Amino acid sequence: MITIDYSNILNDNLGSNEGLNLQNLKNLQNQANNFIEQIQDKRYKEYKFLDVIYNPVDEYIKTANYIKSKFKYFVLIGIGGSSLGTEMLAQSLLDYYYNYKGDIKFFILDNIDPDKVSHTLKNIDIRETVFYVVSKSGKTIETLVNFSIVFKKIKDLFPNNWQEHFIFATEDNNNFLNRFGKKNNIKIFNIPKDVGGRFSVLTSVGLFPASVLGIDIEELLNGAKYIDKKFTNEKNILKNPFLLLGSIYFLLDTLKQKNILVMMPYSDKLCSFVSWFRQLWAESLGKENMGQTPVESLGTLDQHSQFQLYMDGRKDKIITFINILKRKTDIKIPENLPEGLEILDKHSLNQILHKEYLGIKNALKSRGVPNLSINLDKLTPYNMGKLIITYELATAFAGYLYGINPFNQPAVEIGKQNIYKLLKEENYSLIDNKETTLYF
Amino acid sequence: MITIDYSNILNDNLGSNEGLNLQNLKNLQNQANNFIEQIQDKRYKEYKFLDVIYNPVDEYIKTANYIKSKFKYFVLIGIGGSSLGTEMLAQSLLDYYYNYKGDIKFFILDNIDPDKVSHTLKNIDIRETVFYVVSKSGKTIETLVNFSIVFKKIKDLFPNNWQEHFIFATEDNNNFLNRFGKKNNIKIFNIPKDVGGRFSVLTSVGLFPASVLGIDIEELLNGAKYIDKKFTNEKNILKNPFLLLGSIYFLLDTLKQKNILVMMPYSDKLCSFVSWFRQLWAESLGKENMGQTPVESLGTLDQHSQFQLYMDGRKDKIITFINILKRKTDIKIPENLPEGLEILDKHSLNQILHKEYLGIKNALKSRGVPNLSINLDKLTPYNMGKLIITYELATAFAGYLYGINPFNQPAVEIGKQNIYKLLKEENYSLIDNKETTLYF
Repeated sequence: MITIDYSNILNDNLGSNEGLNLQNLKNLQNQANNFIEQIQDKRYKEYKFLDVIYNPVDEYIKTANYIKSKFKYFVLIGIGGSSLGTEMLAQSLLDYYYNYKGDIKFFILDNIDPDKVSHTLKNIDIRETVFYVVSKSGKTIETLVNFSIVFKKIKDLFPNNWQEHFIFATEDNNNFLNRFGKKNNIKIFNIPKDVGGRFSVLTSVGLFPASVLGIDIEELLNGAKYIDKKFTNEKNILKNPFLLLGSIYFLLDTLKQKNILVMMPYSDKLCSFVSWFRQLWAESLGKENMGQTPVESLGTLDQHSQFQLYMDGRKDKIITFINILKRKTDIKIPENLPEGLEILDKHSLNQILHKEYLGIKNALKSRGVPNLSINLDKLTPYNMGKLIITYELATAFAGYLYGINPFNQPAVEIGKQNIYKLLKEENYSLIDNKETTLYF
Repeated sequence: MITIDYSNILNDNLGSNEGLNLQNLKNLQNQANNFIEQIQDKRYKEYKFLDVIYNPVDEYIKTANYIKSKFKYFVLIGIGGSSLGTEMLAQSLLDYYYNYKGDIKFFILDNIDPDKVSHTLKNIDIRETVFYVVSKSGKTIETLVNFSIVFKKIKDLFPNNWQEHFIFATEDNNNFLNRFGKKNNIKIFNIPKDVGGRFSVLTSVGLFPASVLGIDIEELLNGAKYIDKKFTNEKNILKNPFLLLGSIYFLLDTLKQKNILVMMPYSDKLCSFVSWFRQLWAESLGKENMGQTPVESLGTLDQHSQFQLYMDGRKDKIITFINILKRKTDIKIPENLPEGLEILDKHSLNQILHKEYLGIKNALKSRGVPNLSINLDKLTPYNMGKLIITYELATAFAGYLYGINPFNQPAVEIGKQNIYKLLKEENYSLIDNKETTLYF
């Protein structure tokens, strides 16, 4: 079970300056109707990310079992939409510090930071490692850089069967990764053409690695399917989680100038969910001089870092809390505490977390800072599947409301062209104008 | 050596709509003069964080050596200003994944997330652990909660000498931690009264743990002292790094409506520097309906996540890049790469990082997105010391320009009172209004 508590975005609680009224939401009903129709119409095109959750997963599970029996390290090489989804699944659904015990140790090489890359390679035994190289376009610079480095090492160690240490995921077209993989008989998982990187966690991109890590991917998909079956025909904004979320964020931006969307789980294991959401929201909606800036936050830590700003700073934010009602693991505060700590008595950590959240939520309400709460009864694959699809559809609906295409990323190309050009040049300088540079 | 390249905040590069001109900076000269005088006047009060860098550190080093000889695990219990500075020092100055080899393994218990706490405790041998409990007020809820849990375990294991497993850092007054520590002969490091949590990394709060982790804290302080000696009398904004940074951020906010301050290092090891800065900026300046929202970012990862928004989204951001010119570790791209990867030839990872940064910086310039670059020649304790003091003073100067007190945090108290009240109540519910809650 998941709940969305949106009482603290309404003017009953915030006052009419900062809060919405229900009529604001109801005014979007026509757009909601059209959006629901659009989902069904374009289910095999832009909304393909919904369709793929029905694809068979046997091949992922079979390959995962083989990998687990044969290797000790599993390294994902990929960045952005090719890494953030998997990182979210690993962090939310495995033990905290999973690498300190798990059967197969898992690392991600996303960035090409030499410190990170060299120390990751030091911490694995490359002879016992399989690399999962993920790039939809098959030509992502960082991914090819990291691939080049490990390819050389593996080929030197295993001149005859180096291929066994690689699995690729890419689109089936004439890109480098697909070409090279086919030529060398490397196992390749397909990334469907119509599913963009940031919407691809429930394809081979995220499902295969999740399966290697022992996550129940069928349950993950069952959660996603539940949302699809129950809500992609539900037109009532107040009864449909993705219509509700998309509407609230859109209205608070356009009617109340909240250009900052803070996502603040009270769970360390959901930090990577926020990083995943952050790409989804920013890359889908940051267009045509629009789009809120998603901001990563964490309770209770940010009570001691950002709360002053959220309370007293500019009224430009909406806060989304995420709570977990019941934990697999909870810790009771011990009895007979030293004098002065009586207030902690009879609590568990999760109860204290809940009370801290309530205290903060009410404080924000008292200052007219809009906030809403997503409560998960448990942190399970099923609930994560629900949450993922809900936010993907909420993002798409927000795009519809803004009147922009949430599925492209036109500006990214400009950066890539600049970088390609620079890669061909031999000389470069980080400082081009000494007059406007201060040395100290 | 550190440089600040500010060419891309000027209208020569951005156009006059988005860019500042040098005259805007020069117009702040009077305020700069006054601020420099204020630093000297209040050096033993609000600006005590400058004075403490001259305190002796022998006691930290001696205690650290003892701890290293006696224990295998060092766990910091503290949150916000009591943890973020130490985390920054550990991440920036130790190897990536330092716990996979270091002499003494280091964990932080900041949050009270039961998943994190229980798995941290699983991953240490508590019999060989020393806990450094840090709270300036001596009554931070999360810190006392985590202390309670480990206190009970340690006392059960070592009824006679449990005290040896604890070191405290707190203010010398009648707070719980100080009282309890004194009563039980626990070693206590003092946190100076006039140094606020977010300005305290160069006191016992950060220096002692850094010393345990093998960081050269004298070099760290030498960097800080260099800034103090060379610049706390330098009134020329264009020649003083902290006046320059404070002015730029303030002017872009107040003249150009940039309410979002993105900090984007091209180094995974500087992520925690950004988390530290984020508290410093938000808690100091988020007041009286003012204050930019600091946003954590990371190159190159966010080229694949946030760059679309930075380029095409609302013009409400300033981007601060941080680069590292030379790395202790760099990796050369191997020769004889497969066909199709020629473009990577003859590069090292750090060179590719630099070119990616340049490509992105120029792309942002072309769209009129203001950005400035901090370049560190190397990632050393000396440079980190410089950077820390520079940003602390830049924050204080911005506070001066906004006309607010950067050293208090009045709103935080409201949250704390709410939480204390709730802790005394037996019953609570996460959902108070079912009518405005959607269940799915």
